[in-house]
Amino acid sequence: MLFTKGEKILFIGDSISDYNRAKPVGEGLFGALGTSWVADVAATLEAARPELGLRFVNMGIDGNQVRDLDKRWQRDVLDQKPDWVCVLIGINDVWRQFDSPTRPEEHVPLDEYEATYDRLIQTTLRQARGMVLLSPYFMEPNRADPMRARMDEYGAAVKRLAAKHGLTFVDLQAGWDWLFQYMHPCNIAWDRIHPNHTGHMHIARQFLAAVGFEG
Amino acid sequence: MLFTKGEKILFIGDSISDYNRAKPVGEGLFGALGTSWVADVAATLEAARPELGLRFVNMGIDGNQVRDLDKRWQRDVLDQKPDWVCVLIGINDVWRQFDSPTRPEEHVPLDEYEATYDRLIQTTLRQARGMVLLSPYFMEPNRADPMRARMDEYGAAVKRLAAKHGLTFVDLQAGWDWLFQYMHPCNIAWDRIHPNHTGHMHIARQFLAAVGFEG
Amino acid sequence: MLFTKGEKILFIGDSISDYNRAKPVGEGLFGALGTSWVADVAATLEAARPELGLRFVNMGIDGNQVRDLDKRWQRDVLDQKPDWVCVLIGINDVWRQFDSPTRPEEHVPLDEYEATYDRLIQTTLRQARGMVLLSPYFMEPNRADPMRARMDEYGAAVKRLAAKHGLTFVDLQAGWDWLFQYMHPCNIAWDRIHPNHTGHMHIARQFLAAVGFEG
Amino acid sequence: MLFTKGEKILFIGDSISDYNRAKPVGEGLFGALGTSWVADVAATLEAARPELGLRFVNMGIDGNQVRDLDKRWQRDVLDQKPDWVCVLIGINDVWRQFDSPTRPEEHVPLDEYEATYDRLIQTTLRQARGMVLLSPYFMEPNRADPMRARMDEYGAAVKRLAAKHGLTFVDLQAGWDWLFQYMHPCNIAWDRIHPNHTGHMHIARQFLAAVGFEG
Amino acid sequence: MLFTKGEKILFIGDSISDYNRAKPVGEGLFGALGTSWVADVAATLEAARPELGLRFVNMGIDGNQVRDLDKRWQRDVLDQKPDWVCVLIGINDVWRQFDSPTRPEEHVPLDEYEATYDRLIQTTLRQARGMVLLSPYFMEPNRADPMRARMDEYGAAVKRLAAKHGLTFVDLQAGWDWLFQYMHPCNIAWDRIHPNHTGHMHIARQFLAAVGFEG
Amino acid sequence: MLFTKGEKILFIGDSISDYNRAKPVGEGLFGALGTSWVADVAATLEAARPELGLRFVNMGIDGNQVRDLDKRWQRDVLDQKPDWVCVLIGINDVWRQFDSPTRPEEHVPLDEYEATYDRLIQTTLRQARGMVLLSPYFMEPNRADPMRARMDEYGAAVKRLAAKHGLTFVDLQAGWDWLFQYMHPCNIAWDRIHPNHTGHMHIARQFLAAVGFEG
Amino acid sequence: MLFTKGEKILFIGDSISDYNRAKPVGEGLFGALGTSWVADVAATLEAARPELGLRFVNMGIDGNQVRDLDKRWQRDVLDQKPDWVCVLIGINDVWRQFDSPTRPEEHVPLDEYEATYDRLIQTTLRQARGMVLLSPYFMEPNRADPMRARMDEYGAAVKRLAAKHGLTFVDLQAGWDWLFQYMHPCNIAWDRIHPNHTGHMHIARQFLAAVGFEG
Amino acid sequence: MLFTKGEKILFIGDSISDYNRAKPVGEGLFGALGTSWVADVAATLEAARPELGLRFVNMGIDGNQVRDLDKRWQRDVLDQKPDWVCVLIGINDVWRQFDSPTRPEEHVPLDEYEATYDRLIQTTLRQARGMVLLSPYFMEPNRADPMRARMDEYGAAVKRLAAKHGLTFVDLQAGWDWLFQYMHPCNIAWDRIHPNHTGHMHIARQFLAAVGFEG
Repeated sequence: MLFTKGEKILFIGDSISDYNRAKPVGEGLFGALGTSWVADVAATLEAARPELGLRFVNMGIDGNQVRDLDKRWQRDVLDQKPDWVCVLIGINDVWRQFDSPTRPEEHVPLDEYEATYDRLIQTTLRQARGMVLLSPYFMEPNRADPMRARMDEYGAAVKRLAAKHGLTFVDLQAGWDWLFQYMHPCNIAWDRIHPNHTGHMHIARQFLAAVGFEG
Repeated sequence: MLFTKGEKILFIGDSISDYNRAKPVGEGLFGALGTSWVADVAATLEAARPELGLRFVNMGIDGNQVRDLDKRWQRDVLDQKPDWVCVLIGINDVWRQFDSPTRPEEHVPLDEYEATYDRLIQTTLRQARGMVLLSPYFMEPNRADPMRARMDEYGAAVKRLAAKHGLTFVDLQAGWDWLFQYMHPCNIAWDRIHPNHTGHMHIARQFLAAVGFEG
Repeated sequence: MLFTKGEKILFIGDSISDYNRAKPVGEGLFGALGTSWVADVAATLEAARPELGLRFVNMGIDGNQVRDLDKRWQRDVLDQKPDWVCVLIGINDVWRQFDSPTRPEEHVPLDEYEATYDRLIQTTLRQARGMVLLSPYFMEPNRADPMRARMDEYGAAVKRLAAKHGLTFVDLQAGWDWLFQYMHPCNIAWDRIHPNHTGHMHIARQFLAAVGFEG
Repeated sequence: MLFTKGEKILFIGDSISDYNRAKPVGEGLFGALGTSWVADVAATLEAARPELGLRFVNMGIDGNQVRDLDKRWQRDVLDQKPDWVCVLIGINDVWRQFDSPTRPEEHVPLDEYEATYDRLIQTTLRQARGMVLLSPYFMEPNRADPMRARMDEYGAAVKRLAAKHGLTFVDLQAGWDWLFQYMHPCNIAWDRIHPNHTGHMHIARQFLAAVGFEG
Repeated sequence: MLFTKGEKILFIGDSISDYNRAKPVGEGLFGALGTSWVADVAATLEAARPELGLRFVNMGIDGNQVRDLDKRWQRDVLDQKPDWVCVLIGINDVWRQFDSPTRPEEHVPLDEYEATYDRLIQTTLRQARGMVLLSPYFMEPNRADPMRARMDEYGAAVKRLAAKHGLTFVDLQAGWDWLFQYMHPCNIAWDRIHPNHTGHMHIARQFLAAVGFEG
Repeated sequence: MLFTKGEKILFIGDSISDYNRAKPVGEGLFGALGTSWVADVAATLEAARPELGLRFVNMGIDGNQVRDLDKRWQRDVLDQKPDWVCVLIGINDVWRQFDSPTRPEEHVPLDEYEATYDRLIQTTLRQARGMVLLSPYFMEPNRADPMRARMDEYGAAVKRLAAKHGLTFVDLQAGWDWLFQYMHPCNIAWDRIHPNHTGHMHIARQFLAAVGFEG
Repeated sequence: MLFTKGEKILFIGDSISDYNRAKPVGEGLFGALGTSWVADVAATLEAARPELGLRFVNMGIDGNQVRDLDKRWQRDVLDQKPDWVCVLIGINDVWRQFDSPTRPEEHVPLDEYEATYDRLIQTTLRQARGMVLLSPYFMEPNRADPMRARMDEYGAAVKRLAAKHGLTFVDLQAGWDWLFQYMHPCNIAWDRIHPNHTGHMHIARQFLAAVGFEG
Repeated sequence: MLFTKGEKILFIGDSISDYNRAKPVGEGLFGALGTSWVADVAATLEAARPELGLRFVNMGIDGNQVRDLDKRWQRDVLDQKPDWVCVLIGINDVWRQFDSPTRPEEHVPLDEYEATYDRLIQTTLRQARGMVLLSPYFMEPNRADPMRARMDEYGAAVKRLAAKHGLTFVDLQAGWDWLFQYMHPCNIAWDRIHPNHTGHMHIARQFLAAVGFEG
C-alpha cells in the first residue's frame, strides 16, 4: 500500500470531502473527520491496519473551487506537513458555470483550473512524499449533457496532471458510470453531486483500491 | 378566462404544490397557500383581477402519489365543494421506481395510475364545474434517460385523460424542455424536481395561459 | 423592454424590497433575492425571457431611509456596477414622523429627501444605463389622512425627479388606489405598508408594465 | 366603585384581552393574566385598593368571535362563578369581512352578533352581579372607511345591549377618536387593532373610569 | 405636573427599571422601554396627556450599583440631553453585602454611595431641568432585619440628597410598608426585590403622584 | 444507621425534593435523582457506604401539597414497595395562603393537612419498615412574620405526627434558624424557599445525622 | 456470499445497531439506516454489488435487551418478512447488572437470555432463509474484569445457539481483542460499548467477512 | 482544619473540576462553582462551618493539561490572590497518549509534567499560605492496563511533589480502588474519568478528610 507506518495523510477539496468535518483543522476526537468518504477511508484503514498508526486530516471546505484551495494552501496543506496529500477539486469550478450562468466571476475556466492545480502540485511535491488526485465528476450518465461534457474536460485535465507528475489518479467519473449501469443516479444523490452513504463508500472503495489497500 | 366571479379553485397534488401551505386546509390569512406556483397563480389573479373575488385552496401534500390522493379525495376535495379542481400528480408515482428500486410497494404502475386518476376525475365532474390537469415531469432534457422516459408515459396518460373528459391540459414537461434550451436544469432545481422561484413562476405562467388569463 | 441581453439590474430600497434577501449582497443561489416583489420580477423575467440572461441584485435593507441609502450608495450600488438601478425609498422617511412623533432626529424632511435623492440619481447616471423610480406609498385610501397626505408629497417629489432626469416612474400609490376599489387594505397588509404575496405581485406587475415587459 | 370586597371579576374576549394569558384559566401566579389591558386593570386595582382583595380572571382567546364565546361560555364563564363579567368582543366578527372577503363562513353578520350577545348576557345575569360591556373598535379615524363604518354598527349594537340590560358600557371607539386628535393611529398599533403598552393603558383607564375607580 | 410639553424624561437605575428594555438606548418602537414601572409611567402619561408629546428613555441595567452609574453617566445620561433625570439606585449596593458576604469588593459602603450619588446629581443639574430620586428598598416589613435596616440607611441618604438639592423624592420603602399591611411580600416579589406587574404599577403610581400627575 | 443492606429508600414531597428528577419514577441512570438534597443524601451514602447497596427513589413533584400526595400515594409510594419513606411536605400548603390570598381553593388548612398526613402514615406503616418526616419551613428568621408563624404551626403538626407514630423527625426550620445566625437568608434562597447547593447540603446533612449516619 | 439477488436483510438489536435509524421502520430514503455498522454494511454491499439489488432494514432500538426483542419480534421482525435476520443483542442484558446493581429487575440472567434467544431463533427459522448472530461484547481487554467475564458467558451462549441451529456466528469480542493489541479501547469508545466510526467499520468488516463478501 | 476564618480557597484543574462553572471566574451567585466535587466541598463547608465565611473559587477548564495551567497560572491563580490553591491535573496529560496515539503533540511526557508542576508550586508558595494536590486517576481497577499504569506514574509524581514541598496530598486513585471493591467503575463514570454525583461526592469527602474537616 502507498501509505506506511506513522504517515500523515491529508485530504483537501470541497463539500464532497467536508461533510461537517471539524474546523479549522479536521483531525482528532469527536468525529473531526466529518461523515464523507474521507471518514470512510480513515475508518477502514484504522480498523483493518491498526498497526500502521496512520494519521488522517480532512481539510475540505464546502463550495471550494481551485481558487479557494490556492488561497489557503500554505496554511491548510503545507503548514500541516503531511506525507501524502489527496485532492478532490473542480466540481464547483464547473457547476457555477451552469447553475449561475449570469455570474461569470464565479466560473473557473479550464486553463486557469489546470494551471493553478499544476502549481499547487509542484509546490507540494517539494515537501510531501506524494499525492493522490481524484477526478471531479457529475453523476449524469448522459455524456452529451453540457455540464457532464464540461466536467469531463476538467477530469481529463486532472488525469493529465497526474500523468505529468507521476501521481496516483482515481477516476471517480468512471466509477459512477459503472455504478449507474445498475441504478439511477437519483438513488445516490438528489443533486447528482452530493453522495449518500452508499455513494461515499463507493468513492472510498475506489480510493482504497487505487492506493493499494487489499481489503 | 375559465374562472368567473366568486368561484372557488382548489389545487391538489404533491410537494410541487405544497411548499409549506397551511394544514389541514390551505386557505386563508398568514400565507396559507404556501410558496409554490399555486401561490403565484393566486397572487397574480388577485392582483390583476380583484373584481372577481376568486377563492383559492391549496391541498397539496409532500410526497403524495395518486394512491394518496385517492384516500383523501372525499375530505380534501369533494367536501371542500370547489368549482374547479386543478391536479398535478404522478411525480412520486414514478420517482420511487428509481430512487427506491428495491421497494416495489412504493411504486405505482402506469395502469393503476391511470385507472385511479380516471376514477377521481369521474367522481369530481359530477360535482365541480371543471378540472385542470397538469402533466407530471422530470427536469431531464435527455429523453433517453429511463426516468424521463417513464415520466413521459405518465404524462401521456394525463393527456389522454384530459382529452377523454374534455379538460384543460397543461404540458409542464414541454414547458421545461422549452426552458432548458436556454439554461441547464440545475439552474431551476437541485434535484430536477423541486423548482426554485423562477421554476414556480414558469409553471404558474403556463397554468395562467392555459386557463385563458391574458396578462 | 427596457432591459437587454446580459444586463445587470440592481434594486435598492427598504423593507419592501428586502424581505429576507441575502446579505451583504442579494444575488445568487439559495433564494438570495428574498421573497419580495423584487424576487417576483426576477422570477418572471427569467421564466419568460430566459434567452436574455438578465442578472438581478437585491440590495434593500429593512427600515432604510434615503439617508441610509446615501451612506451605502458607493459600496452597495456603484461598486456593483449595475446597468440599471431601481429605487423604492421614502416610506420610512415619512413613517417615522407619525409612529415616532417625539423623536425628530428620525424624521427626514421633504427637502432633504428630494435633495439627497437627486444627488444619488446624478451620481448614478454617470455610470449606469438608466434608473427606475418607484413612488413611496401608504395603503390608506383616505387622502385626507395626514400620513397619506405627507406620503403623497414625497411621491410627488419622486415623480418630479423622474421627470427631471427622464427616468421611468412607477406610481405605486396610484396602483394601490386602484386595487382598493375592490378590497380593503387590510386584505393586503396588516400595517398598510408591508404587502402579502398578492401585494408584492401587484407591485411587480406594475414594475414590469412600466419597463415594457409584455407578458 | 362597582366592585366590592372579595369579588371575582372575569374578563372575556379576543386577542385584545388575551396577550399571552395562562391557559386554560388565566388566573394566578407567574403572570397568568398576560400583558393586555386586563393585566393593567388588575395591577392598578391590586396596587391602589389592596384592602379589597379582588380576584381577576382573564379568559380572552386570540381570534375569537361572538360565536366562539357562545361555544365556551358555560365552561369559561358560568362555571368560573364570577361576580362580574367584562366583555370585549366583535372585532374579529367584523375584521374577517374585510381581510377575508371571499370566505363568508368566517363573517358574523350584525343580527347574529347582537342576538348571540343578547342571549349570553341574559344567561349571565341570572348568576352574576353584573357585567361591563366594551365596544369593539377599529383605530381608523376616518368614519367613512367601510370597516370603520361597519365596526360602528357593531359598537352601536353593544351600546343598545348595555342600555337594554342596564349595564356599564365603555365606548372604546370614542376613546380612540379622542386620542387620535393628538397622534396618528400607527403610534398605537401597526394593524390598527392590537394596541401597544400605551394603547392598553388607554383602554384600562377608560375601563377604570367607567367602573368608578377614582385614581 | 413637573413635566411640560415636549420634554425628555430619562430613567436610570438597576434591574427594577431595566426589565428587558432595548439596548443600548431604551427608547422608541417595539417595546423599547421594557416592562417595568418605567414603561407603566410612560404608557400612563402618553395615554392620559397625549397633547404633551413627552419623550421617555429607559437606561436601567440589571445589577447596577451606583459605581456602575458613575462609569456610564456621561454616555448614558448627559449625552442623551434629558430635561429630567429619574434615578432608582442602591438596591444592589446593599444586597451584595448580604447575598455575597465573602466578597467585599462587591459591596458599596454608605459613604461611597452617598458621595458618588451627590457628585452625579451636581453634574446633572448643570445641564438638566431637574431630577426625581426614588429610594432603594427591600420588601421586608421587619425593620429589625439586618438587610432592611441597612437599606433604610441608604434610603435616608437619598432623602438627604433630595433635600440638599431641592429635588422630588419618592419614598418607595414607605410605599411597600403601606402595601404590606394588606398582603404578604411574597404576593409581590419572590425575592422581595423584583416586583410583579402589581408591584411595578404600585411604584409607577407613587412616581406619578410625586410628579404631580392627577389621574 | 437506620438503613441496612439492600434496602430501598423512597423520598416524596414537593419542589424542594424534585429539582428536575426523572419522571415518572426518579430512580436509575443519567441523574434520575435530580439535583436536590435527595441526590446529596444518595451520593453521600453510596460513596461512604458502598457495601450497603442501598436503593434510592425520588418521587418529589414541584408545587405539591399534601392533597397531591394523597392522590398519588398508592402509585407513587406504596406500589414502589419501599423499605423507608421520607416525607417533606407542607410548604405549598402554607405558601398559597400568602402568595395567592384571593384563591382559597388553593389553601390547605392545618386540620386537613394533619389529618391527611396522619392517614398516609398509617397506610404506609402497614407495609414499610419505617418513615422519616422532615418539617416544612420558611427561611424567615422573624418568627412574627405571619407566614413563618403559620409554617411553624404546620411544622409542629409534623412533629406531633412523628411522636405519635414513633418516627424519626428532622426539624429543618430549626436548622435554618441556626444557619441564619451566620448569614442572611438571601445567601441561601432568593425566595426563602428553594435552596441553593449550600442549602441542599445543609438539609442533607441534617437528614443524614438524624438517620444515624456518622460521617 | 450468503445473500443473493433481491433478498431482504433485517438487522435487529440495541443501540449499537440503532444510531439514529428511522422509526418505526429503518428503511428507505434520507439516511433511514442511521450511522451504525448496519449502515456501513449496507453502503458497502450497495456500492460493491449493485447488481444484487439487496434490501436492508435496521430495526435496532437504544437500550434493548433480549426481553425487548421478544416483545416486538412479531411486528418488527416476522411481519417485515425478511430473508435474513441479523441479531446483535445482550450488551444491555449484562451492562445493567454492573451499572445498576441495586435494580435486579433490570438484569437479564443468562438462562433467561439463552432461552429467549433460542425461542426467537426457532420462530424465525420457520419463515426466514437464515440468520446471522453477532456476539455481545465489552471493550475491556482484561478478561478478569467481572463485566467482561460475564459478557463472555453471554457471548458463549450465542455461539452455542449458532452452532445448535447451524447459523453464521460473528465473534465481535474476539475482534476487539485483536484490535486492542494495537490501541487502547478509549481510542474506539468512551464507554467501552458505543463505537466511533472506526469501531463501526471494524464490526462491519467482520460481518461482511463472515457472510462471505470478498471485498 | 487547614482553612481558617475568611480565607480564600482556589481550585484549579481540568474538566473534573469545571463541570460548567462560571467563566471567566468561577465565583459568586447563580451556581458559579458548577456541579463538580468543588461545589460539593464548598457547599459542605458553607453549610457546616458558616461562621468561617470561607471563600471558594473554581478555575477548572475542560480538557486542560499542565501546559494549559502553566499558560494561565498568572491570571487565573496568582492574580486571584488565594490563600490556598488546590490542584487536580494530569488526567488529560496521560489520556491523550491513549485516545490520540497518532498525535504526539497532544501528549505531555512525565518529565515535562513533573517539571512544570514543580515550577507552578514554587511560584505559588511565594504568595499563598499553602496548597492541596490531588492525584490524577483512571477508574480502571486493573493496574496492568497500560493507561492505568501510566496514570500511576503521574500520580506518583504528584505524591513526590507534595512530599518535596510539604503539601497535603489526596490520593484519588487509591480512593477509587477502595470504592471499586464494592461496585464496577461503570457505576460511577461511563468513560472511567468523569464521575457522576456519587463519584464527585466521593472525591469531595476525601478532600475534606485530607484538610482535616471532621464532619
